Amino acid sequence: MKLNVGIIGAGRIGKLHAENLLSFQDVHVKAISDLYIEPIKDWVRSKGIPKVSTNYREILNDEMIDAVLVCAPTIVHAEIIYEAIEAGKHIFCEKPITFDINETYKIHSVVEASNIKFQVGFNRRFDPHFSQVENGVRTGEVGNAHIIKITSRDPEAPPPEYIKSSGGLFMDMTIHDFDMARFLSGSDVEEVFATGTNLVDPVFKEFNDIDTAIITLKFANGAIGVIDNSREAIYGYDQRIEVFGSKGCLQADNDLTSTVKKLGKNGTLQDNPKHFFLERYQKAYICELRAFFDSIKHDTKTLCTINDGLEAERMANAAKKSLEMGTPVKL
Amino acid sequence: MKLNVGIIGAGRIGKLHAENLLSFQDVHVKAISDLYIEPIKDWVRSKGIPKVSTNYREILNDEMIDAVLVCAPTIVHAEIIYEAIEAGKHIFCEKPITFDINETYKIHSVVEASNIKFQVGFNRRFDPHFSQVENGVRTGEVGNAHIIKITSRDPEAPPPEYIKSSGGLFMDMTIHDFDMARFLSGSDVEEVFATGTNLVDPVFKEFNDIDTAIITLKFANGAIGVIDNSREAIYGYDQRIEVFGSKGCLQADNDLTSTVKKLGKNGTLQDNPKHFFLERYQKAYICELRAFFDSIKHDTKTLCTINDGLEAERMANAAKKSLEMGTPVKL
Amino acid sequence: MKLNVGIIGAGRIGKLHAENLLSFQDVHVKAISDLYIEPIKDWVRSKGIPKVSTNYREILNDEMIDAVLVCAPTIVHAEIIYEAIEAGKHIFCEKPITFDINETYKIHSVVEASNIKFQVGFNRRFDPHFSQVENGVRTGEVGNAHIIKITSRDPEAPPPEYIKSSGGLFMDMTIHDFDMARFLSGSDVEEVFATGTNLVDPVFKEFNDIDTAIITLKFANGAIGVIDNSREAIYGYDQRIEVFGSKGCLQADNDLTSTVKKLGKNGTLQDNPKHFFLERYQKAYICELRAFFDSIKHDTKTLCTINDGLEAERMANAAKKSLEMGTPVKL
Amino acid sequence: MKLNVGIIGAGRIGKLHAENLLSFQDVHVKAISDLYIEPIKDWVRSKGIPKVSTNYREILNDEMIDAVLVCAPTIVHAEIIYEAIEAGKHIFCEKPITFDINETYKIHSVVEASNIKFQVGFNRRFDPHFSQVENGVRTGEVGNAHIIKITSRDPEAPPPEYIKSSGGLFMDMTIHDFDMARFLSGSDVEEVFATGTNLVDPVFKEFNDIDTAIITLKFANGAIGVIDNSREAIYGYDQRIEVFGSKGCLQADNDLTSTVKKLGKNGTLQDNPKHFFLERYQKAYICELRAFFDSIKHDTKTLCTINDGLEAERMANAAKKSLEMGTPVKL
Repeated sequence: MKLNVGIIGAGRIGKLHAENLLSFQDVHVKAISDLYIEPIKDWVRSKGIPKVSTNYREILNDEMIDAVLVCAPTIVHAEIIYEAIEAGKHIFCEKPITFDINETYKIHSVVEASNIKFQVGFNRRFDPHFSQVENGVRTGEVGNAHIIKITSRDPEAPPPEYIKSSGGLFMDMTIHDFDMARFLSGSDVEEVFATGTNLVDPVFKEFNDIDTAIITLKFANGAIGVIDNSREAIYGYDQRIEVFGSKGCLQADNDLTSTVKKLGKNGTLQDNPKHFFLERYQKAYICELRAFFDSIKHDTKTLCTINDGLEAERMANAAKKSLEMGTPVKL
Repeated sequence: MKLNVGIIGAGRIGKLHAENLLSFQDVHVKAISDLYIEPIKDWVRSKGIPKVSTNYREILNDEMIDAVLVCAPTIVHAEIIYEAIEAGKHIFCEKPITFDINETYKIHSVVEASNIKFQVGFNRRFDPHFSQVENGVRTGEVGNAHIIKITSRDPEAPPPEYIKSSGGLFMDMTIHDFDMARFLSGSDVEEVFATGTNLVDPVFKEFNDIDTAIITLKFANGAIGVIDNSREAIYGYDQRIEVFGSKGCLQADNDLTSTVKKLGKNGTLQDNPKHFFLERYQKAYICELRAFFDSIKHDTKTLCTINDGLEAERMANAAKKSLEMGTPVKL
Repeated sequence: MKLNVGIIGAGRIGKLHAENLLSFQDVHVKAISDLYIEPIKDWVRSKGIPKVSTNYREILNDEMIDAVLVCAPTIVHAEIIYEAIEAGKHIFCEKPITFDINETYKIHSVVEASNIKFQVGFNRRFDPHFSQVENGVRTGEVGNAHIIKITSRDPEAPPPEYIKSSGGLFMDMTIHDFDMARFLSGSDVEEVFATGTNLVDPVFKEFNDIDTAIITLKFANGAIGVIDNSREAIYGYDQRIEVFGSKGCLQADNDLTSTVKKLGKNGTLQDNPKHFFLERYQKAYICELRAFFDSIKHDTKTLCTINDGLEAERMANAAKKSLEMGTPVKL
Repeated sequence: MKLNVGIIGAGRIGKLHAENLLSFQDVHVKAISDLYIEPIKDWVRSKGIPKVSTNYREILNDEMIDAVLVCAPTIVHAEIIYEAIEAGKHIFCEKPITFDINETYKIHSVVEASNIKFQVGFNRRFDPHFSQVENGVRTGEVGNAHIIKITSRDPEAPPPEYIKSSGGLFMDMTIHDFDMARFLSGSDVEEVFATGTNLVDPVFKEFNDIDTAIITLKFANGAIGVIDNSREAIYGYDQRIEVFGSKGCLQADNDLTSTVKKLGKNGTLQDNPKHFFLERYQKAYICELRAFFDSIKHDTKTLCTINDGLEAERMANAAKKSLEMGTPVKL
C-alpha cells in the first residue's frame, strides 16, 4: 500500500522533494500546488504527477492524501499548517516553521494535541557524515562533550529579493546550525551571544541584515559551543562540524567534489567542497523524507520534531536580540 | 520516445543494471531472461518489468526491443552476441567479451561489419574521479605521460566456485586495470611483464590461479606503467590511479565511506574506502549505461568499444603467458 | 664579533633557550642565573656555559653582556626588567610581561623611552606554518579578512602548583592566542567576550580558574574572530588557525608526529599532532631568538614588541572581566 | 671521552656530515681532506675544524682519529677503504661502496675479517617516517608482507658531468630504493626485472643512461615489490613507500614543506613535498651518524652493514642486466 502525498509549494525545494519521492516505491506524489502553475506544467507532466493546482486546499480536501510537504513561503506556513492538521494530514514542514515565535508556540501546542506526524526540514541531521558524528557523541566516543564547533558558510549570497523576506541571517541560515548544535550536543541551549557584521555585501545592511557572524552558545549540559557564518565563501559551501570532549574529538570535514589531486610546480591542488546545499546534502534530502514516511508507516516519533523547530527559532530570536543589545541573551 | 531494452542474465550485475535503468526516463526495461527465473519472479514484479523468460531468444525475437545487456556468464557470451547482432540489437556486454581471444577477434570483425552499437562493461572509465584524471591527461595537464600507476585490490576473495570459472586473475580482475591503463594513457600497450604469486589463500593455487600480482607495461606512446593486484585487502576496496608526466602528476585516491575523523589517544582514525565495487562504482554503473543509450540515441561511437574489449583481453592473455614463461611478452 | 647573552631563570624554558643558542655562531651564552643552581650545575658545565650564579644582578653587572633573556617567574619580571634597562641590556622577556596591567603600562613607557631592543616571547609568531599564513594575509591572499579562528588546546593540564600561580587561563594560555589573533589580523582588538567553564578537572575551580573557554573578538579593522581553548585534549597539542576572507581561506592544520598511515580493518589510523609546545614549536623557539639577535645586530624593530605584549595582556584582562560580568568588554 | 673523526672528501655530503657532527657532544671532527682545499678553507675555519689537508692519508695516519667518513668520489672508495681498514679506523662509507661488484665482494671479505665498524650511507633507513613503517612491518602490524611499493622521483635531473660518472640510474639513484626494499621486507631479493626509458632529457641517452624506470622485485620471503623512478618530478622530491600485507597496509606519504592550505576559487592548494634530499632527509642524515657512532661506542653491529651495501649493488647490477637483456634476472 502506497502513501499518497501532496506537495504545497513548487519552488526549488518543493520540486526537489517531488523528484526525490519518485524513487520511493511506497510513496505516491498525488498532487502539487503553487500560486503560479503555468511555468511548471511541463515539469509536472514529465514527472507523472497526476494533479496540479493553484489552490493548496484541493490537496487538503483530497481524502486519499495522507501527508503534505509544506514548501510554500514561510509567511503562509501557519495558515497551511492549521488547515492541514484540521484535515488530518501528516506534515513535513520546511524551516523555519514561522517567523513569529508566538505563532510557532501556538502551532506547537496544536500539533502536540493532535495525532499527526510533524517533521521540520532540518535536512542536515540526515547528512551521513553529520549523523555519524552525532551517533559517535551519543554512544560516548568523545566522552563528555566540552566544545562544539560549527562552520557554516554559503558559497554565494542570495539575491536581494530573497534577503528581504528571508527573516534575516539567524532565522534563515544560522537556524540550521542552531538545530545542528542541539542535535550534536543532545542538549538544549541556555544562552546565546551573537556578534555580526557586514563584510560581504552592503545590500544586507540595506535590509537591516548582516552577512558575517560568530555565535557563542552555552548548553544546558554544561558544554559550550560556537558557530561561524558567512554569506559568501568563494571556495564553495563550507560545512564542517567538530565535537571535542573528554575522550577525543569527532570531526566531519567538507565533502569534496572529487578525490583527484594535481601535483604541479606551485603545489598540490585539490577540488573544492561540493558547491552548495543541493550538491552537499543530496543524500540528506532523500534520507529526511525516507525518515518522515517511515515514522508515518511505523507510527513512531519523527526524528526532527516540532519542538526541535521551536527551539531553533528561539535560538534565532535570542541571537537577534543579542546582536541588537550587544549582550548575551538567556533562553 | 523510449528505447526498449532486454537484459540477458539476471545475476547480481544484471539486476543492478535493471534497477539503475528504472530511473532513466528514456529507457524501458521490457524483458529480462535467466535460466533460473523462480528466485527472481518477485523482484521482477516489484520492479515493474513486464516480461521474464528462461530463454534469451524471446528477447532477441521481440522486435520492439532496441538493445540488449549481455549479463550472462562469459562462457555463453559469444553465442548470444552473434544472435543479437543477427537480430539487429545494440549490445552492451559485460567484460570479458569471451575467454577465447580468437573468438573475440571474430566477434570484433562481425561487430565492425555491422551497424550496431557495441559497448563493453568497463565501468571504471565512467567513475567521475578516474574520468577527471583521464580528462586532465588528455588536455595536457600532466604534459607527456611518463609513468602510469594503478593500484587495484579487492576487499575479499570470491568463493571457490567463482574462482574456478573466472578465467583467472588477469582475465577476471586485472582486465579492468588493463583497460584503465589504455584509457588513462590514450595508448595501446606493446609489452607486458607479469609477476604473480599465492599469498592470500591456497584455494587459488588449486584452480591454477594466483591472488597477488604486479604487472609492468610498456605503452606504444613511450610511457611505462605498473599495476598491482591483490584478491584481499582487509581495509576495503583499494582503487587508486596516478599519471605522472613532464608537467606534474594527477592522482585519484580512494573514495572513503565518510569524511568523519576521530581524534583519540592513539591517533586519528578515518573511515575505510567504500567497501567494494557496488559501493565504489555506484555512479559509474549508471554513467556507463547513460553513455550507451546516448550513443544509440545520437548515433555516436560508444565510449568503450569492442576494440577496447579486445585489447584488454590481449593484455590479459599476454600477462598469463608472461607469468607462465617468466619473461616479458610483446603484443 | 659575538653577542654575549645572559639567561635569567634556568627553568624549562631558560634551559631550552640556552641549548638552542649553542648552535648560533654569533651568540655566546656567557652566564645563567637561578635561585637554585645546585640541580643544574652539571647541565651548565656540559653545555660549556662559563658562569652560573644565584643572583641575576651578576649578569646585569657584567659589562660584556649585551642582552638578557628573562625566563624567571612572571612575578619578578618587572624588577628584573627595570634593572636590565638601567644596565642597558637588550631584553627578551617571556610572556606575560607582568600580571599587573598597570605595571606593564609603566614598563612599556620606560622601554619606549630607552634605546634597548625588547622582544616578548610569543614564540608562535615564528612558527613556519603560522607565519606563512600571516604572510599570506598581509600580502592579500585572502583579500579582506572576515573571520579569524584559532583552536588552541593543551594535551594535558599543568600540575596544581603551576595553576595556582599561572595568572589564570587567559593570562597563561590564551595570551598566546590573543597575540596570534592580533598577529594574523594585523589589527588591534576592540571588544572581547569570554565564555568559560570547568569541564576538565575540578582542581581549576579550586584556584578560581577555568579549563575550557570560547572567546569572541571584534577587531578594529572590522573582522571578527573566535578562540577556543581546553586544558586537556587527549589526542595531543591541538594548534590550528584559519583566516577566512573575501578571496578565500588560509588554514594551518596540526603538525603531525609522522606521515605514516595504517590502513586496517577498522579504518585508517594516522599519528597524532606533535605532543606539546616543545615538540610543536621547536623551530619557532629557535626562530624567535634568531629574530631577536638579528634586531640587535641590525638595529631594527623587534618582531614582537613591548606593545604586542601589552595588548595581549589587555585582552587577557578584558576576557577575565567579561567572564566575571557575563558581558562583552570593550578595550 | 670524545670520538675523533676525520672526513675524507669535502663535497656537498662531506660538508653536510661535518656540520651535523658539530652538534654531537661526543664526537669531534678533527680533520677533513679534499683534493681541492682552497675553496673550503674559510668554511673549515668557521666550523672550528682543526685540520684540513689535500691528502686523506694524513687522516689515516693520525692515531688519535677513531673513525672516518668516506665521502670522496665512488671511484676512489676501494683504495681509501683498504687503507682505512689497515689503519684500524671505523668506516662510514657513502653509497655505492664501489661501481665494481667484484671489488665490493673483496671489500666485504676484508671488512668481515676485521674488527672495524662499517656502515653504508643508506640514509633513508634513518628517516623517522620510513623507519616507523619498517618497525610496523617487523612487529607484525601488516601481517605477512605481500606487496612492497616504493615511489622515488627526484625534483630535477643532475648536471651532465654528474650523470657521466654516476654509475647510471640504478647504481646512483635506485640503489637507495633497492636498499629500502630489503629494509622494509626484511628479506633478500631473488629476482629483478627492470624497464627503463628516456623521457625526461636526451642527455641521459648520450651517456647510455635512462631517466625513467619501473623495477619489479621478487623477495626471498615470497613477497613481490615494485619501484618507480624518475629523474624529474616538477612538484618536488617524491618519496613514498607502502607495505601491503595480510593484516593491512602501512604507508608513508611525502613530507610537505608546510601544513598550510589555501582554499580559493579554483580549489585547495597545499604546499609541495620538501624540495630535495637535503630538506627531506635532514633528520635522517643526523640519525645515521648518531647510529654509526653509537655502534662504535657500544660495540654493536651497524644498522646498515657492508652486506647491505653489497646486496643493493647486486640488485643494481641485476637491474642493469635485466634492462639490457629485456628479461628478468635472478640474483
